[in-house]
Amino acid sequence: MARRDTRELILATSLGLFNEHGEPNVTTNLIADEADISPGNLYYHFRSKDDIVIELFKRFLARFQPLIDIAADERINGEDLWLQLHLAFEVKGEFRFLYRNLADLTARIPDLDRAMRALLERERRSIENLMTGLGKSGLLDASGVQKELLTQNLLLALTYWIPFSDLQDPEGLEDGSAQIFGIARVLLMLTPHLREPESSQLTDIAYTYLSRVV
Amino acid sequence: MARRDTRELILATSLGLFNEHGEPNVTTNLIADEADISPGNLYYHFRSKDDIVIELFKRFLARFQPLIDIAADERINGEDLWLQLHLAFEVKGEFRFLYRNLADLTARIPDLDRAMRALLERERRSIENLMTGLGKSGLLDASGVQKELLTQNLLLALTYWIPFSDLQDPEGLEDGSAQIFGIARVLLMLTPHLREPESSQLTDIAYTYLSRVV
Repeated sequence: MARRDTRELILATSLGLFNEHGEPNVTTNLIADEADISPGNLYYHFRSKDDIVIELFKRFLARFQPLIDIAADERINGEDLWLQLHLAFEVKGEFRFLYRNLADLTARIPDLDRAMRALLERERRSIENLMTGLGKSGLLDASGVQKELLTQNLLLALTYWIPFSDLQDPEGLEDGSAQIFGIARVLLMLTPHLREPESSQLTDIAYTYLSRVV
Repeated sequence: MARRDTRELILATSLGLFNEHGEPNVTTNLIADEADISPGNLYYHFRSKDDIVIELFKRFLARFQPLIDIAADERINGEDLWLQLHLAFEVKGEFRFLYRNLADLTARIPDLDRAMRALLERERRSIENLMTGLGKSGLLDASGVQKELLTQNLLLALTYWIPFSDLQDPEGLEDGSAQIFGIARVLLMLTPHLREPESSQLTDIAYTYLSRVV
């Protein structure tokens, strides 16, 4: 097997094991075993489990970052918002181990802590730009304080839906229903502050979505 | 020192250290050292760090449980809700290490995992009773699906405000401003679904609260 392929195999195997068993419960020996390579071969590619975690975070970021690039002057409609949320939840779900043990991982890996705080800050700015965009289109009806608290609530829901689902309904993360509830929760946080007909439109999207799982 | 006093000293010392440094970073040796007792004396009272965590969880539960006992036929006004939230956030903040490393702790201690899931279920029922109470008083205006999603959003915000604050604004947990933002976020999740004048009343309470910290 080519060197590059082995590296990719280790990453894919690690991601699967981390998501299934939780990162703290997966050793490099288990990864090597599951990938059917020697521990020495694994250490040739990655010096430690933390290096694997960091590389997976970079992969996650490369996929996630473009999804939250909302320009400050962008005008947003309901369909766009739904699609963007859907893709963002999908990518986070794919790398869910990162969010399941967030406090633990960031406490252990300083580089990840910095990167995660920076990502949170970029997500905050995207949400603020979304609000500004909705405001410019005349869709959003909220005071400055409400916008600030709504931003925080959205950020909290977007960051912690994975451990929340894990605690409430662990199967939901496997079968995708946790993502649907997560998106519906986010949409219905926004709708009370939107003008018609966009408010009803987003509510309908959320209901259609939910009807697939409840 | 009496036996009971030593036990209490160990618990108080552990709580302080867990909150300050994070539970994973605190060893029983550090606790014994900080409490100025021998490690042997500590092990006489608690067989392991997990036993200390479980005892602290029981103390937390004894304080928290009465705060969320909302009967299904209870009628709730804005002032009551504010007071109840304030006390509940205060107690969670006091035992914040439990919520900061929730996934890690529950993965490690099966008893805590069961207890935490049971608590989450009781919190969910309390929120549902709150909704029912607000509905009976003619205050709440939301469909069945909206109530369900609102319940989930509230539960998520009530469970993860501590790690969220930790990631965003670590000092806020020390100086109490994280709690105020947390309460304001919860109040302003509810207000769009409340009828007047209660909606404005709760918004005013949230603003008064926030003006102390921003």
